[in-house]
Parts: sequence; structure tokens; C-alpha cells
Amino acid sequence: MKSNFIVIEGLEGAGKTTARDCVVRVLNQHGISDVVFTREPGGTPLAEKLRELVKQGIEGEQVTDKAELLMLYAARVQLVETVIKPALARGAWVIGDRHDLSSQAYQGGGRGLDNQLMASLRATVLGDFQPDLTLYLDVTPEIGLTRARARGALDRIEQESLQFFERTRQRYLELAADDARIRTIDATQSLEKVTLSLEQAVTRWLAEQSA
Amino acid sequence: MKSNFIVIEGLEGAGKTTARDCVVRVLNQHGISDVVFTREPGGTPLAEKLRELVKQGIEGEQVTDKAELLMLYAARVQLVETVIKPALARGAWVIGDRHDLSSQAYQGGGRGLDNQLMASLRATVLGDFQPDLTLYLDVTPEIGLTRARARGALDRIEQESLQFFERTRQRYLELAADDARIRTIDATQSLEKVTLSLEQAVTRWLAEQSA
Repeated sequence: MKSNFIVIEGLEGAGKTTARDCVVRVLNQHGISDVVFTREPGGTPLAEKLRELVKQGIEGEQVTDKAELLMLYAARVQLVETVIKPALARGAWVIGDRHDLSSQAYQGGGRGLDNQLMASLRATVLGDFQPDLTLYLDVTPEIGLTRARARGALDRIEQESLQFFERTRQRYLELAADDARIRTIDATQSLEKVTLSLEQAVTRWLAEQSA
Repeated sequence: MKSNFIVIEGLEGAGKTTARDCVVRVLNQHGISDVVFTREPGGTPLAEKLRELVKQGIEGEQVTDKAELLMLYAARVQLVETVIKPALARGAWVIGDRHDLSSQAYQGGGRGLDNQLMASLRATVLGDFQPDLTLYLDVTPEIGLTRARARGALDRIEQESLQFFERTRQRYLELAADDARIRTIDATQSLEKVTLSLEQAVTRWLAEQSA
């Protein structure tokens, strides 16, 4: 089977790290062991610097929505060109903690940036590069933020209003409904059930690829 | 007269700072004293952080052309939305040390990034916002770099090859020839002659605006 780029998406506190471990386990069971992990924004020294700017902002300065979006795409294209594409080219699989769908959901849905602007930027920067499979972990903002808060202090984005995260979730659900490469997992269930749903989704998808 | 956005452009060592002082003098002579200075990339705390990343790069990491371009646009949109537009709106004039033409010349001409990509990004990020007047100080790379070197150590961009700056200059000249809002000044002349050319160009342009 060709190497693939699998992305795990969802709101803060949706359980992306646990999901990643689960996906790796399923891949290993299918004899796939050369797996590279990425996270966005970040994943290269430059992209991590940009992550810091996006997440922490600058004391006393309001980061504009467009500047935020462009920093995220700068980090993304750096990661795609220097890490993800080379890894796929040498035959490794890549599992990403977030990718482009996050920008579509957070900046498009949450911030309300224009859809045309988002689509144009994506096409300009990434061309037709996209994940082979995206696992979207769906939780309500209430559940997600409660979990995120339990992990520690919230960053600039995590401090947004509940309405912001509701718009973000809504956009995630709309985009997932429209795209067969995105599988939605109900992540409000118990850990055991979420794990089972994930295992089934990945196993089924792998079978589809081999068919 | 409405407030205007005047930009000074050119290769490293073209004499942009001297030119700025000259433009301010002419504006003052015409009774315009509320003038805001900007520089790009930079001009806000966030944009200065991005300037640092673009100029210094990251030890051991190759900054991709697209990531560089997107960081420049992130810095630019932050400056335009939080500094330039508000200044113009309150009636101040703005004199910019570099603006969008630099990206078109350096990233488009120098790096050879696709014209369509550049145009699409510019339209997406800036819409129809543009300077009212651009003064392009034309020097050969040899002259510019000799002057820049005399100022001290060269940064990541200044260390590019002579061919890079020749492509950049070529693009500057092409764009200036196509756009009546860009006036080309021969900056290889003596300081006195450059100053005279600038004074004449700005005085003539101001007269055109009042006509």
C-alpha cells in the first residue's frame, strides 16, 4: 500500500493524542511501522516559532484575523514541503495532529473569515495537496474546554468565547458531511467507545484502500 | 488634500532612508506635517518578530520560498490594518520604507515565485489597497550591495547572489514601467542629483494631486 497522510482533527480537549496512539496501534497491526508524527501549527523549528506567535500573541497588540491565518499557512507550507512530503516520498506514513481543516474550521468558521478568501489562499499555498484520511473527533465545546482546562492554563485561542467554538464545531461538521475523506467520530462517548469507533474507522478505511 | 500613502522602494543600499528625509522635507514645505513612518517587513511588535524570522531565518532550517512570502504578507496585513489604514483615516500621511512592491520584486522576481500565485495572494490579502505614490530608487546591485556592506554584516536576504538582485531589479523596472503610480529615480547619481530628482518628482506629483 502507498504511504498515506492521516490527520486527526477536533476541538481542544477532543482527545487527539489518545486518538493518535490508537491509530498507530491499528497501523502497526497492519504491518505499518514507519510512521512520522506532525503537529500543527508547528513541526519544524520555524513553524514552532510561528505557533508560539499565534498561540501567545504579542502583549498589547491585537493580532488581526488575516495575519493569524497567514502565519498558520506559513507554518503549514513549511511543514508540508520540508517534512510531510519528503516523509511520504520515502515511503513513511504521516499522522498529523491538525492540518488544513483546522484553519477552515477555526479561522473560517470560528473567526468568520470569508470562504472565498480561505479557498483562494488554500489553493494558492497548498495546490491539491491534502490528507488521505481525516479523523474528526466531534465533541461539544463544553466537554472539550472542560477537558482542556483540566490540562492547565488556556492559550490565546483556547480563551475564545463558547460561541467561537460552537461556530468552529459547526464548520467542522459541515465540512465532514461534504467530504468522504473525513470520518466523524463521536468523541463525547466513553474512552472505550471512542477507541473502538476509531479502530473500526481506520480498519475499514485500510480495507477500502487495499480493495 | 486627502492624506496619502507614499512608499520608497529599491534594492539594499539604494538610499531609502536619505530619500525618506527628502520626501518629508518636501511635504513639510507644502504644509503637510502629520506624517507617520513605517518600515516593512515590520512596523508593529508582531510584524517586527516576523521581520526577524524572515531576515535571520532559523539555524539549520531552509526557509521555503512560500513560507517566506506568507510571513511577509502576515506582517504586511498586520501593519496595514493596525497602523497604515488607521493613520490615513485620521488624516495623517504615511511614508513607508518598502511595501508590497518589494515582495513582487524580491519574491516574484528574485526568488522566481509564480506571478499568478503572487497576484492571487496579494488580491486575497490586501484587496485593492495600494500606495498612492511609490518612489523606486534604481541602483545596480553592485552599487547597492557595496553601500549595504559598508553599513555592516549582511542579513539572510542580503547574502543572496548577485543574480538574485539582478532579477529583483529587473522586476522592479518592469513593474515601474507599467504603473503611473510608480516613479523611477536614478539612484546611481550623486547624492545631490538624487535629492534633486526626488524633490522634483514629489513636487510634481503633489501638483498633479491638487490639479
